[in-house]
Amino acid sequence: MPRISESTVRRLSHYYRVLEEVEAEGKRLISSHRLAEREGVTSAQVRKDLSCFGSFGRRGLGYNVAHLRREIRAILGLDRRWRVAIVGAGNLGTALMLYRGFERQGFDVVAAFDRDAVRIGQRIGDLVVRDIADLPAAARHGGLDMGVIATPLRAAQEVADALVSAGVRGILNLAPRKLFVPSHVALRTVDMTVEFESLSFALNHLALPARRRRPRG
Amino acid sequence: MPRISESTVRRLSHYYRVLEEVEAEGKRLISSHRLAEREGVTSAQVRKDLSCFGSFGRRGLGYNVAHLRREIRAILGLDRRWRVAIVGAGNLGTALMLYRGFERQGFDVVAAFDRDAVRIGQRIGDLVVRDIADLPAAARHGGLDMGVIATPLRAAQEVADALVSAGVRGILNLAPRKLFVPSHVALRTVDMTVEFESLSFALNHLALPARRRRPRG
Repeated sequence: MPRISESTVRRLSHYYRVLEEVEAEGKRLISSHRLAEREGVTSAQVRKDLSCFGSFGRRGLGYNVAHLRREIRAILGLDRRWRVAIVGAGNLGTALMLYRGFERQGFDVVAAFDRDAVRIGQRIGDLVVRDIADLPAAARHGGLDMGVIATPLRAAQEVADALVSAGVRGILNLAPRKLFVPSHVALRTVDMTVEFESLSFALNHLALPARRRRPRG
Repeated sequence: MPRISESTVRRLSHYYRVLEEVEAEGKRLISSHRLAEREGVTSAQVRKDLSCFGSFGRRGLGYNVAHLRREIRAILGLDRRWRVAIVGAGNLGTALMLYRGFERQGFDVVAAFDRDAVRIGQRIGDLVVRDIADLPAAARHGGLDMGVIATPLRAAQEVADALVSAGVRGILNLAPRKLFVPSHVALRTVDMTVEFESLSFALNHLALPARRRRPRG
């Protein structure tokens, strides 16, 4: 398999969503045009992305929905279940613990940790928040594949180190700072402030369409 | 100014964080190497990114921290304040309403909306959740620059349409689906499940380092 860029992987996730939808509607075939249209990319991009993994479509016929969905599912590693720990039981961590959407795609939130005595022992949904000191034991016991860092900024690198020591190989960082992990650990960062700044940049530089231009104040 | 890619804008956000940190430490100059190192990119990338906006550095001396920070601040549109509405007062929406980090960078969450009668009227931090039907009035009254969609999937497109009708020009979508907005509106999507899938893909395809390979089960 050729080296797959991160943006290709993200598009695969989106194609997968579309295929789930289309399969639920009972459709058997989908064209690259249709996949492209729903995703806001070109159909050439769709064909290129999918060709990285072998040849799924037939010219003029399109892709077999069920087959392509199964293939992408396997490529993305969604044909097994992943054990996820959330570290940080503040507002954001709690929201993620209560969200049921991850489970649907194979990501089971099986443990929650915090270091604040007030939070340790609290029940949130099906989970009881444990002391972060228990992380190694929890990892040894049931195995943890991924960790979500939902702590304040200052604790984030320390938590990342603890997750790595515990054998966790995938980290989703929600704290607004760059973290350092060894190369055998995959790290993704979601920083909402960066998203806001991407919007403010766009609003600063996007021209308003003439008919919407109005005097201010 | 040349066309700036979204990934450049994201790196600018990160450079900005580093510059804030370094300025707080009292440093006057920073090299492209140092900026690169902290961001995990090459110093050539840093110089290329910054050269899009004019020449900030002096060969051999590095960049003036305060000056570069001010410039990036203006480029990202952070030299003014932005009025943000959050739609959806569930767990995630509530977590965002309570988060103080956005304000620090110029994003004031000034309004919260929901359509659920149980949530309307609830106080969350400094905000009182309002009926989504009040969105146009709220936008006319104080002006809303950006909207965050923290609703369930099914409501997301409808909320996006309502935000656009109310004159909001930047949307941050946290619902796990692609939304359609007119071209004068900037849209960013954060889908945590896509992040998890990017991790499961990586874990599926990253080789374990030999010393960590262990028999399973």
